[in-house]
Amino acid sequence: MTDDIHLEGSASLQQQLYQQLSQRIVEQRYPPGRRLPSSRQLAQDLGVSRNTVNAVYEQLKAEGFVRSRSGQGVFVHEDIERALQRPVPPARPRPLATAPMTLPPLPRKPVAGAGAGDDANLPFQPGLPDLDAFPIRSWNRILHHQESRRSLRGYDSIEGYAPLRQAIADYVRSARGVRCQAEQVIIAQGAQQALALIGDVLLQPGDRVFSESPGYRGARYALTRHGNPIVPVPLKQQVLDVDGLAELGPARLLFCTPTHQYPMGGVLNVAQRMALLQWAQCNQTWIVEDDYDSEFHFHNKPFAAIQGLFDNAPVLYVGSFSKTLLPALRVGYLIAPEGLVEHFAQAKRVSGGESPLLAQATIAEFMVSGQFSRHLRRMRQLYRDKWHHFQDRVSTELAGQFTPVAESAGMHLVLEGECDDLALSQWLRSRGFGSTPLSAHFIGHDARTGLVMGFASASERQIDDCVRTLSERPV
Amino acid sequence: MTDDIHLEGSASLQQQLYQQLSQRIVEQRYPPGRRLPSSRQLAQDLGVSRNTVNAVYEQLKAEGFVRSRSGQGVFVHEDIERALQRPVPPARPRPLATAPMTLPPLPRKPVAGAGAGDDANLPFQPGLPDLDAFPIRSWNRILHHQESRRSLRGYDSIEGYAPLRQAIADYVRSARGVRCQAEQVIIAQGAQQALALIGDVLLQPGDRVFSESPGYRGARYALTRHGNPIVPVPLKQQVLDVDGLAELGPARLLFCTPTHQYPMGGVLNVAQRMALLQWAQCNQTWIVEDDYDSEFHFHNKPFAAIQGLFDNAPVLYVGSFSKTLLPALRVGYLIAPEGLVEHFAQAKRVSGGESPLLAQATIAEFMVSGQFSRHLRRMRQLYRDKWHHFQDRVSTELAGQFTPVAESAGMHLVLEGECDDLALSQWLRSRGFGSTPLSAHFIGHDARTGLVMGFASASERQIDDCVRTLSERPV
Repeated sequence: MTDDIHLEGSASLQQQLYQQLSQRIVEQRYPPGRRLPSSRQLAQDLGVSRNTVNAVYEQLKAEGFVRSRSGQGVFVHEDIERALQRPVPPARPRPLATAPMTLPPLPRKPVAGAGAGDDANLPFQPGLPDLDAFPIRSWNRILHHQESRRSLRGYDSIEGYAPLRQAIADYVRSARGVRCQAEQVIIAQGAQQALALIGDVLLQPGDRVFSESPGYRGARYALTRHGNPIVPVPLKQQVLDVDGLAELGPARLLFCTPTHQYPMGGVLNVAQRMALLQWAQCNQTWIVEDDYDSEFHFHNKPFAAIQGLFDNAPVLYVGSFSKTLLPALRVGYLIAPEGLVEHFAQAKRVSGGESPLLAQATIAEFMVSGQFSRHLRRMRQLYRDKWHHFQDRVSTELAGQFTPVAESAGMHLVLEGECDDLALSQWLRSRGFGSTPLSAHFIGHDARTGLVMGFASASERQIDDCVRTLSERPV
Repeated sequence: MTDDIHLEGSASLQQQLYQQLSQRIVEQRYPPGRRLPSSRQLAQDLGVSRNTVNAVYEQLKAEGFVRSRSGQGVFVHEDIERALQRPVPPARPRPLATAPMTLPPLPRKPVAGAGAGDDANLPFQPGLPDLDAFPIRSWNRILHHQESRRSLRGYDSIEGYAPLRQAIADYVRSARGVRCQAEQVIIAQGAQQALALIGDVLLQPGDRVFSESPGYRGARYALTRHGNPIVPVPLKQQVLDVDGLAELGPARLLFCTPTHQYPMGGVLNVAQRMALLQWAQCNQTWIVEDDYDSEFHFHNKPFAAIQGLFDNAPVLYVGSFSKTLLPALRVGYLIAPEGLVEHFAQAKRVSGGESPLLAQATIAEFMVSGQFSRHLRRMRQLYRDKWHHFQDRVSTELAGQFTPVAESAGMHLVLEGECDDLALSQWLRSRGFGSTPLSAHFIGHDARTGLVMGFASASERQIDDCVRTLSERPV
């Protein structure tokens, strides 16, 4: 049955095998219940190591594509069938079961003026990478190759610098399973501008926006800045409650983090992902997929993006270099369906124009030269070590006070616990440690409490200090 | 009468003297009709050269602050008095004499894909500086001082990098007479983002936006992107017709280029500027002052910004480094009244977040080190030479076909003439020369025709070639 599998692309063997198998399952060329070859057999057929096949099978299991029956082997999961055959919800808007919420006022910068920068770069600030581990010398070498080029001085293209769009398309295709051509990539001022452009292009006054609760606040503010009502979609077992969507009425946009829920870390399995896309298609809802830290998942391997689950999925895919490279670059990207690219280009043209060229050219060359992958591998190991150390310290010193949410581990870890988390986060800041209160990520009133701790930016010693500080806290 | 004048600031003696004299006239400490000391006397009193005083008197004359009576000397202009005492228009909205217009669809990029950059950088493309004259080696030296700084890797401040905000405030205060503190400066992705943020913060649905016609199209698109109606304000003798404003009804915003009308080049004299600000105050209208090329006025000396005419003028001042440095930097700025700064910061936070740090730090150091002023002086001489050459070639070879509008000379020159200017501009592009059709800058139907030619980006030889090409045109 695996005669048609050919591993010959530029992505790793493991990625290629994962993508080809998952694709055949989604398309039901491998129907539900079908037994897959043993890992020994498949490895032999394809001429790859058995470890490679085993790793792919583990990932397919974790994502819900396949399951093991003890002693009998690995089978395509029957849930796939249910997902593909589930009753289609009515396209007509239902009466609303959940009233739109009003957003709280925007978070104010904690400290005005020159101090703000220092404050935003405190260790444990969520979203902040390890600034000291950045390969500044190799980066600068590439910068020096680009800095004098005349073609990087004038105007270029509103969508972005062509070689960077190509490099991003190649990267997300092979690393994230995204289906796209370079022409669909639009460079933005961080993920934040990508989200704002989505609002500009797709929202009419009154259109309802769905957003995970708890969820990423920056997206909510971008998507509701023209006054659109926001509807919280609660989580179930740390992921967006897909089954509950039908009760929430119509939506024009749904913002979500399907491969690593922010901040809780859950992952939609393949049946849930299929159901989510079907719901979106039936309801004419656009899904905004924020793939904010796919490079760094530690509890599970990174799952493929839902954008790539099938052709023409109604998904706008958003990514950023703020975490994989540096926040100060302010470069993110949007991958839009072909038919919308010109609309996004127009929205970008009137709202801010082109993106800075030298940074774009440097990132492109950093990617094409292979240094980006190398950097990601190093950071993955570094952050994984930090995660183990942090989780270990928390379990030892904060037992009974905070429970680490293991799924969340990427660049941050959620510590759940009963506390006044706003006060605690503020107090911790006064001791020199960043964090965000978990409750602030909820829309509405049923918030849980705890701390979102961005350990990627903390040294081992800062991790020790912070955990000790937390264990001695007065609040 | 000039005992209180002290020239001791960091700006040039000429700038200081200009600002102190014009200020005293606006505040009527030197009342209308008062005779100023002779240039010989004033030069002696202040210990400066007579040339300096003469240059300032010439500028004050050109702007309408003073006038000469032959043989009797220089007197404060009586029009100042009329401007200060003109009847206050009613604050209540009047019935509309001019219906709002609908904008044409956005201009599409002429060529898609990789070629777009080349096309946007053709010689004579308006707005494009001389990319070859940019001091890339000194610039890169400063870049190398900044590139490895850890503090330029993470997050900073939403309003912008503090040393750059300070450098801009110092610059616009001394070079443009703008009244501001560094805290009022907001860094943006080019002037375009500054304009878009103004729309985000100040416009409610239905609010009317006034814009010069002919005028700058990028501003119109930014300020009407949420559907606000636009009302054209015609020109009178190449400047905004201030007297006609009262007939146009209420406006929330007026976009204008008061010190160098784009593209026609007229300058509002001081009486017109006072009247404009009074109209704005009475009608609760914000004036958006786009000071797009104040560094390069050749027909007249650059006039001070209206933002600085008096304290708390209802003016949002917009500037950019795209013309003074490089378009590819994508750095512009907005100078906002103190009470609006936090609103602009919030709008910027949700629509795109912070601005890239390395470029900001490099510009700041380029300014503080004095290299920015040096670069501007060199470019002023270079562009002036190009202007003389271009105007000379046009007068010689295109006489009877096109009339150069001398006032417009900065980085571009308007050539007025009867033609199908859209077709001509397109044809010229096919020969390798950029330009924009004059008629495209008009809102509505009473458009004049001709070409807006950005000569700053053209070499002497390209100027010769382009004029010859135009003289042989088939259309």
